[in-house]
Parts: sequence; C-alpha cells; structure tokens
Amino acid sequence: MAELVKEITSRDVDFATWYTDICRKADLVDYSSIKGSMIIRPYGYAIWENMVKVLDNEFKKTGHMNLQMPMFIPESLLNIEKEHVKGFAPEAAWVTIGGNEPLEERMCVRPTSEVLFCDHFKKIIKSYRDLPILYNQWCTIVRWEKTTRPFLRTREILWQEGHTMHATEQEAREETKRMLKIYEEFQRNYLALPVIVGKKTEKEKFAGAIETYTIEAMMYDGVALQNGTSHYFGNNFSKVFGIEFLNKEQKLEHPYQTSWGVTTRMIGALIMTHSDDNGLVLPPKIAPIQVNLIPIGKDEKILKEMEKISLLLQENDITNSIDLSDKSPGFKFAESEVKGYPIRLELGKRDWEAHQVTLVRRDTLEKVVVANDKIIYTIQTLLEDIQQNLYNRALKRRNSMLYKSSNYEEFKNLAETKPGFIEVNFCGEIDCEDQIKKETGLKSRCIIQPVKNEKCIRCGKQAKYKIYFGKQY
Amino acid sequence: MAELVKEITSRDVDFATWYTDICRKADLVDYSSIKGSMIIRPYGYAIWENMVKVLDNEFKKTGHMNLQMPMFIPESLLNIEKEHVKGFAPEAAWVTIGGNEPLEERMCVRPTSEVLFCDHFKKIIKSYRDLPILYNQWCTIVRWEKTTRPFLRTREILWQEGHTMHATEQEAREETKRMLKIYEEFQRNYLALPVIVGKKTEKEKFAGAIETYTIEAMMYDGVALQNGTSHYFGNNFSKVFGIEFLNKEQKLEHPYQTSWGVTTRMIGALIMTHSDDNGLVLPPKIAPIQVNLIPIGKDEKILKEMEKISLLLQENDITNSIDLSDKSPGFKFAESEVKGYPIRLELGKRDWEAHQVTLVRRDTLEKVVVANDKIIYTIQTLLEDIQQNLYNRALKRRNSMLYKSSNYEEFKNLAETKPGFIEVNFCGEIDCEDQIKKETGLKSRCIIQPVKNEKCIRCGKQAKYKIYFGKQY
Repeated sequence: MAELVKEITSRDVDFATWYTDICRKADLVDYSSIKGSMIIRPYGYAIWENMVKVLDNEFKKTGHMNLQMPMFIPESLLNIEKEHVKGFAPEAAWVTIGGNEPLEERMCVRPTSEVLFCDHFKKIIKSYRDLPILYNQWCTIVRWEKTTRPFLRTREILWQEGHTMHATEQEAREETKRMLKIYEEFQRNYLALPVIVGKKTEKEKFAGAIETYTIEAMMYDGVALQNGTSHYFGNNFSKVFGIEFLNKEQKLEHPYQTSWGVTTRMIGALIMTHSDDNGLVLPPKIAPIQVNLIPIGKDEKILKEMEKISLLLQENDITNSIDLSDKSPGFKFAESEVKGYPIRLELGKRDWEAHQVTLVRRDTLEKVVVANDKIIYTIQTLLEDIQQNLYNRALKRRNSMLYKSSNYEEFKNLAETKPGFIEVNFCGEIDCEDQIKKETGLKSRCIIQPVKNEKCIRCGKQAKYKIYFGKQY
Repeated sequence: MAELVKEITSRDVDFATWYTDICRKADLVDYSSIKGSMIIRPYGYAIWENMVKVLDNEFKKTGHMNLQMPMFIPESLLNIEKEHVKGFAPEAAWVTIGGNEPLEERMCVRPTSEVLFCDHFKKIIKSYRDLPILYNQWCTIVRWEKTTRPFLRTREILWQEGHTMHATEQEAREETKRMLKIYEEFQRNYLALPVIVGKKTEKEKFAGAIETYTIEAMMYDGVALQNGTSHYFGNNFSKVFGIEFLNKEQKLEHPYQTSWGVTTRMIGALIMTHSDDNGLVLPPKIAPIQVNLIPIGKDEKILKEMEKISLLLQENDITNSIDLSDKSPGFKFAESEVKGYPIRLELGKRDWEAHQVTLVRRDTLEKVVVANDKIIYTIQTLLEDIQQNLYNRALKRRNSMLYKSSNYEEFKNLAETKPGFIEVNFCGEIDCEDQIKKETGLKSRCIIQPVKNEKCIRCGKQAKYKIYFGKQY
C-alpha cells in the first residue's frame, strides 16, 4: 500500500526534495528534454484550467476583454523604455534565424508584453471615447532563468497579463487596486491561501512602474512566494511611446496605464501551503476531481452502485471519478492521497449490504461512514469544511511565523534562526535595502503602513513605513 | 452613414483587398510591428474563444485531456524523424541566445509538437494499461512564412494539436476518423461551412504521417482552404523514438499514433464564405454578440426599455450588447453591418409607442417589425433561420463551382477559367501530381473514392481514385 507514499521525501527532512516529489508523484509535471522547461501534465493542467475559468470570469465581469498579441518583440521595440529593458533584457531568449536566414533585427520571445501593447495602443487610442481600454491576454512568456524549479521558476511560464489604459490617473489607480483585490479574493476563497497584500518598495517594484502591489503568500517553510502583482505606470510608457488622446476639453493628453498578472506559480503555492507527507492536498474549490470513488472488490452490484453515486454527484455539480483499475484497494487509497482528491469514497461488500459508504477526507484523513441517503449532503458539507479547514490551518501556521523587531541585531538573529516574515520600521532607501539583503539574505515583502517618528531598523534614519522582510522563492 | 462601408473594397472587384478590409474594419485584427505576426483584437479573439469552448468540450466528451508542453524544440530532437524534419525545418524560427549567452544547441520555436510528445510518451508509456493516451494542447506555433495574410497564413498561429497513442492500429485509425468527424460536424453545424472531407494524396500528406485526412472548405472565390487535418502515423514515430509497451501477452510492441489540429484559420474561412460588401457576416452559433441593440434618440423611456430587452435576451441565453455611443443611428446601423452581428434591434419613439421593435437580419438585411411580447420567440427563430440560410447559401454556391472532367485539355481550360474544384480520375503518383501543379497551378484537395478500370486524367495510366483538384490558400 505505502509504496507510492514511501517514495515521497518527508517535508520536514528536506522541503525542496519533498516539493519536487509531490510535483512528480502527483502527476502534475514531468521534466522535458528542454532544460528549464517543464511539461505540465493533464492533472496539473486541469488545476490551471480551473484557475483560468474563475479568473477569466472575474476579468470579464469587470469589463475586460481577451486578445492575442505577437509572442516576439523586436529588439528596438524592447529598447524604447529604458528601465523596462534593463529589467528584462538580461533574461531574454533571442530568435536570430527565421526560415533559414539570419534576421535583420533579432527578436526576443516576450518576457512580458507592455511594449507590444503600447505599440498597439498608440494606433487605436485617439479620443477619450476610446478609453478605458481594458485588455487581458492568456499566454506563455519566457525568462531565461539559470536555476529552475517546477511552477516556481521555469523558463516558460503560463500566465495572464492585463493591460489597461485610462483617461485619468485616479481611474488607473483604482483599476490597479481592483485587480489586486480580485487576485486576493481568488487566492483566499478558492486557493485557501492566507495572503498578505501590499505595496512593494522602490527597490522591488516592476521595471518601469510607478507603483507595484503584490500578493505575498507564505509557504510551509516560512519562505515567501510572490503570487501575483498589479502595477500602476502613470503615463511613463504613454510618454515614451507617444500615446495621446484628445480629452473632453479637446486637449491632447497621455493616458494612464496599468498591468497585472498571475502565473502557474499559484500551483506551486497550493502545493507548498497545503500538501503533506502523504502527497498533494487540494482545496475542493480548485480540485479537478473532488471525490474519488474506489470500489472494493469486483462485485457487479458494487460497481453498479458506484456508477449510480457518480451520476448523482455529477448532477449535484460535484466532480468525481471512479477508479476501475485492477490495482489493489490499498494501492488505490495511497494513490488517492498522493493525488490529493479532497474526498475518497470507499464502497465494499459490507458497506453495500448496510446501505452506506465510507468517506475519507484528505486534509485530516478522518473516516466517516454515511447512509446512502445522506451522501450528497454529507459530501457537500465536508467539501466546505475541508476548504475552510485548509485556510484556517494555513492561517494559523502563517501567523505563528510572523515576527516583529526593532533592533537590527535581533532582526539578524531572527533572520538566521526563524523562518517567516519579520515586521520592522524601514527608511525605504534602495541602498539600505541592498545592505539588509547582503547582511541577512532577506528581501522586503510589502509595505504594511506608513509611520511617523520611527527609525529605520538598520540605518537609524527616519523610517517611512512598517514593512515585512522575508526570504523568498 | 455609409462612410464605414464605403471603405470596404467590393468583393467581386478585388477579393484579396476585400478580405483584408473586412479583417481590419470589423476590428478582428491589427497589424503589428512584427512582420508576419498579427494582433488578434478582442472581437476576433472572442470568435476564437467561442470556437475553443465548443471544440474543447467535444474533445473532453471523447476522453481527451489538455496539457502543456514546452514551446522550444532542441535541434537534435527535431532531427530524429527524417521526413518530419524535412517538412518543418525550412520554416523554423531558431532561438540561439538565452540570458545573454549563445546556446550550446539552438532550439526552434515549435512548428508542431509531435517530437515533444513522443519524447514524453517514451517516458510515460510502459504497459497496455497506460493506453490509450488521449492528449490535446491549445497553444501558439510558429512557421516562418514569407508572405502572410491575416488568419490564413501568419508566422504565429493559434491552434490546438491532439496527440494520441493506442495499443492497436485499428483503435488509432478509429481515433483519426473520430476527430475528423468532430471537426466536420463543428464546421457544418457551428460555422455553417459546407466542407468536403477526405484523404490527402501521398504528395500532400503531413510530413511523417501514413495517412492524412482533411477538411476542405471552398471560399467565395472558388479557392480551397484546408481547414483542419487528422493524421494517422502508424508506429513510425514510435519506432524512431523507441516508444514501447508491454501488451496483454507480455510482449513489447510499438504503440500506434495520431495527431489532429485546427487553427485560427477557421476565422478566415468564416469571413471568405459568408461575408459581403457591407462587412462581416457571422453564423449566430459562433457570433460573440448575436443581437446588437440600437436605441434611436436619447429618450430615457427608450433606454430603459432597451435595458429590459437586453436582460430578457440574456436570460434566454442570447448574447447581446446595447450601443450607447453618441454616434448617429445611421452610423450605428452601418457599424452593426460591418461587425456582422446576426441581428440588429432598433427601437425609436414610434416603435416604443406602438409596443414594438424593428429587427434587421444581417444575412439578407430584411427588416421585420415585432410586437414586444414576441421578441424572444422571433429572435430565436430568426437566429436559427440565419444559421441555416448561411449554410444553404454557401452550399449552393459551392456546388455551382464543382466540375468534372475526363480530358486533360478540358481540365487545363477549366483550371484557367473556372474557379472551384474539379473532379477527375487520378493515378496518385507524386510525379504526376507535381506535373499537374506545374501545368495548371492546381493541387489535389482530397480523395473522393477509389476507382477501377479508369485512366488518370493526365498520364493515362491506371487511375487509383476519383479526386478533387483546386487552387488553395
């Protein structure tokens, strides 16, 4: 029975190996012959499809439309915004040959598409009547990372990138926060992630942005995962790309811009927040299969009953599958745990005779025996309970790893000995942040709130805000 | 009013310019700064999203699962199957630099993913229990075309590619035809395209396949558009990639493979089959917006009534939008025609007082006045009627451009003077087909049926089958 499970490294012994074990054993990914690129296998991709479905619906409800831009960016186009190119050129993959001939100008595979959108916006924006423009794209981007890890850091990334243009600064700022809110609620309500939301420092903001907001999740090991960002650009790009519109007063103005994105990295966050030594654990609201039905024995009556239950679940919008393989029940139970199906439903001869089934919830592995006429109600309740329990569990763990410090020696000691986030007062200067990184290995996560009359934990100068520091993936 | 429309070149004067006019004026695409790559704008992309929704559902109903493979193929991997590489290498785009360093081995951006799938299949297929594998991928591919045209021939193509592996030849052959059937029914029933379905000749089959089946649509100008293909590979790739499984008799065997795909080219087929000099015409079943509501005047009562009707349509699953812009009614009518909304609904003061609305169907531009309590029923009936009428109209036109010939001189004359498909007896030899191409400009479309005791139209040798020839996009 435990053969599958035995192969999973213990989470507390070696977190990194445990993580890749889960990714592989739960059939989420496979490595490919292309260094740094992974194959997202059907079970992993089904999680992404569920994420896409919910988010795409939220984007459309708030007036956004999908489109498809080219995947290549000519070097001269990438070079237009100086901060932006500095941020992305070092990790670019360059196409230099097309159709057996060297290209006149090399093109990178998009690492993000701000410049492509600006190039298009310049053509289609003429008047305030054309605004706002609320666009989104689902696509693959490429960043030539040196060290990679499934879902967290790969050379190819599946994501969505929203790009919007507005007639006023206020409207663009509202959009930046609206989309951040959608990410936050999605991650709390669907992914059961107790995320912290806030603004990035000058040092950590997106290349070319005025402000970057971030969704910070804390993993089981206390390390942060930046799990979504929303940027306000002002009219920085508008100006350098020469995008102008006639406002209501018939004057030419540069429109105000935002962009925002989340990636398949969210699958990594799910794994590193909820899973355990028995395998993957998925929140019911995002799980591709919510109930895994396992018949015990090959009795025709039992298989028929299973099909009846499967259909009943389906009619109640509960996704499910029946395991009809010729593996042993014990093996099937272990596999069900490795795959992280929120509930497994077992039906053997004795249960069948007693008009009942056995349910095992994945989060706690608790068993409950349920009479046939209460199956749907019990499963619905259990699914809700699992969803809530995963969130509560993660929240409790996260809170137990939040620290405060007002003394740099203590801060350094915490950084070395206590995984988690440390709340400090900070001056906000890039140099000071560089030093903290050098001396502790920690980076700023996000700003909590502005402060007055406080001193920076490191340099002792006037502090600008309270902020979290932490290690990051 | 007619300003928008005037800018559309007449279809019968210059078909190619008419086509690009429709693509641009209906806001389907925009050109980008990247030669050969187009931007699929939100309205065009919404048509693609509707196509994806229907097809993805059909694929899943028949047991297929989506996944995501890398987008790059190392040169050595592409080189493994000789026929395949010969077919695709000449049009490849090569990445030679990543992260500021030259790559040890250059990689092409996938032109199709057979070799990537085979590389993965080799790892995950061990036993007959692992089969069939029924995978599909939605992604972008790249083919470095010299001359490009929106949707028909672009360097980047949005498509789906199905890749399946089977334990027996029979099962794989059935799969090849099952997916062809899904394409055929989708194109007939949703896109209203009267397609011709059949097998490709030796010369025209996919690089590396044993058999290629094709969906051939005929455009308004009599030129063919290959609008989907399904390939049977036998175990050609299995053998060269060393993919083996233990069959039920515990013997090692090479599995049997298929692949199949359709692309955004289907949008091109829609345009060139149904649209006219007033703009785009879309079959209601694939149109992003089925009814365009145009209020005449700014009377509060009329706007309120419009919102009521819009909601009512929505409740009846009829997609719609209200044009609240400050353009003139005449301009809105013209725009509604350019965009190809199947029905436009006009409501002015006189209609409002009489408790009625005016409906104009896009396919015939006929007007009908309808009492308020009959709106839903009438629109539902109209939408069905438009869908059927578009199909019938296209079928009639297509049939009027089908010819038969048994004399090569006559055939050459037809090829020169009559756009359309010509049915002939043909030997099937690659050399003979090359000659026909050279002498007439026509290529084989698809095999209609085998024949006995007939002679090839060109070489006079024993004919193998009846076949269509025609010009192609």
